[in-house]
Amino acid sequence: MSQPDPDKLKAKLIAFAKDFAFFQHMGFELIDFGPKWATARIALRPELRNANGVMHGGVLATLIDATITQAMLMTDEYQQVRETKGSMSNADLRVRYLRPLTDGYAQCEARIAHLGKRIGHASAVVTNEQGKEIALGDSILVISLGK
Amino acid sequence: MSQPDPDKLKAKLIAFAKDFAFFQHMGFELIDFGPKWATARIALRPELRNANGVMHGGVLATLIDATITQAMLMTDEYQQVRETKGSMSNADLRVRYLRPLTDGYAQCEARIAHLGKRIGHASAVVTNEQGKEIALGDSILVISLGK
Amino acid sequence: MSQPDPDKLKAKLIAFAKDFAFFQHMGFELIDFGPKWATARIALRPELRNANGVMHGGVLATLIDATITQAMLMTDEYQQVRETKGSMSNADLRVRYLRPLTDGYAQCEARIAHLGKRIGHASAVVTNEQGKEIALGDSILVISLGK
Amino acid sequence: MSQPDPDKLKAKLIAFAKDFAFFQHMGFELIDFGPKWATARIALRPELRNANGVMHGGVLATLIDATITQAMLMTDEYQQVRETKGSMSNADLRVRYLRPLTDGYAQCEARIAHLGKRIGHASAVVTNEQGKEIALGDSILVISLGK
Repeated sequence: MSQPDPDKLKAKLIAFAKDFAFFQHMGFELIDFGPKWATARIALRPELRNANGVMHGGVLATLIDATITQAMLMTDEYQQVRETKGSMSNADLRVRYLRPLTDGYAQCEARIAHLGKRIGHASAVVTNEQGKEIALGDSILVISLGK
Repeated sequence: MSQPDPDKLKAKLIAFAKDFAFFQHMGFELIDFGPKWATARIALRPELRNANGVMHGGVLATLIDATITQAMLMTDEYQQVRETKGSMSNADLRVRYLRPLTDGYAQCEARIAHLGKRIGHASAVVTNEQGKEIALGDSILVISLGK
Repeated sequence: MSQPDPDKLKAKLIAFAKDFAFFQHMGFELIDFGPKWATARIALRPELRNANGVMHGGVLATLIDATITQAMLMTDEYQQVRETKGSMSNADLRVRYLRPLTDGYAQCEARIAHLGKRIGHASAVVTNEQGKEIALGDSILVISLGK
Repeated sequence: MSQPDPDKLKAKLIAFAKDFAFFQHMGFELIDFGPKWATARIALRPELRNANGVMHGGVLATLIDATITQAMLMTDEYQQVRETKGSMSNADLRVRYLRPLTDGYAQCEARIAHLGKRIGHASAVVTNEQGKEIALGDSILVISLGK
């Protein structure tokens, strides 16, 4: 199995993210990422506010989910999934809401805290522009190799 | 304290949901609701798909979060929050993903399983058009009365 | 692969549970079980009380965890794990506490809500002797077949 | 309202923990604690093993729950609860299991990540004697002042 060139892989993933319809729809901006970590943000726009005028909890959940996935894409484990035409999926997602986001952007730092052969445990911290924690997230990823 | 007319309250909430920018942005459609329960759905559109072509996990999280909130709005407990200018917020949200949604819509049935003076526990089940469960959700709501 | 006789399997599991040191230590009593479901209880004894005098949250977590495991043991999926010398483990456990248990016993009904090839999603409801819900639980099980 | 002397308060809490029946029953040993943090451990004894011979998941849940509670006891917020005869309770508990504990002890470091007027968010990390992470935990605490 030939290891992909990390720089080429990263450039390819950045290009994909830039044009990806869902990311554009949600205002999801990838800041940077590598194997087992990623940083991304979503700025608060009128159509992302809940009835109280703050960022909707579902948008924060989306930010966490998408950032965690991005943190997996450059791992060796995920490259094996791709090569064997296996699959990776989320078994669950959890968000703990600490403070409302009233303006600016929500920035998410995700890391893969533990990555075994079949299961990955990911964690995420979301902060506002002042650096205050507004949400904590985690997720369990299930890896399944093809034949 | 005067109890609001339930029919008028419901009509008002339906009118609000219809024009609400976030709901339109996400394709969130309210089907029906009452005190402690709500049903809503989101149809799969191209901009809501993840990189594998199925509904993004963040969209399912949004559907669950918004439907659970809707299940609270006609409860006496929430009307008290409104009258006293208190607040209601989500302490957390959890989604367990069972199957991908490949087409059609995701329909969410939410209920408030337990509602105390300060805390509500909500549960939600999301099914596809064939009625198969695709996700389970739950959330803890924190109620705080004003003075 | 020869299917085990369900009655013999059940008798064997009941005998095991009766003498199991951890179950005796925690006062865990198996009421009944079958493929994908189980019922068990723990009675409140002085050494299981927290500082407020009610059943400690860790005991309720134990009850849920153990009852969910029991609900797996008679499934075909788990029998395959045994035959292939594979493994089954808990990826996570969650307990939502609704009310304190002040006396009598806590009874747990667990069911396997969804069971795929690699992942099982389990749910549990704990009630007091009056039938009131005191806790809700869920868990994600990871199945791995041997060769 | 008179602030209690922190040293006296701590000595009182240590004395309580030493004789507390539930802690003795579970082998729960308090290592050290202060406002918003605590460290404790449970050594693996025969009656705490599951059917695979490793520490039962319910014991790890108990360790996390009890250590998180201990991290609250010296906070000003909890002292206010005591003085006003209010209450503090756990709304939920979550444990993510990373690795089995095969021998030695499980050590838990808990911290209160965020503490508001009504809600606290706590996190915990459990390691084995070699310092490897075996479980991650979190919990939502609900604070309610008396009159």
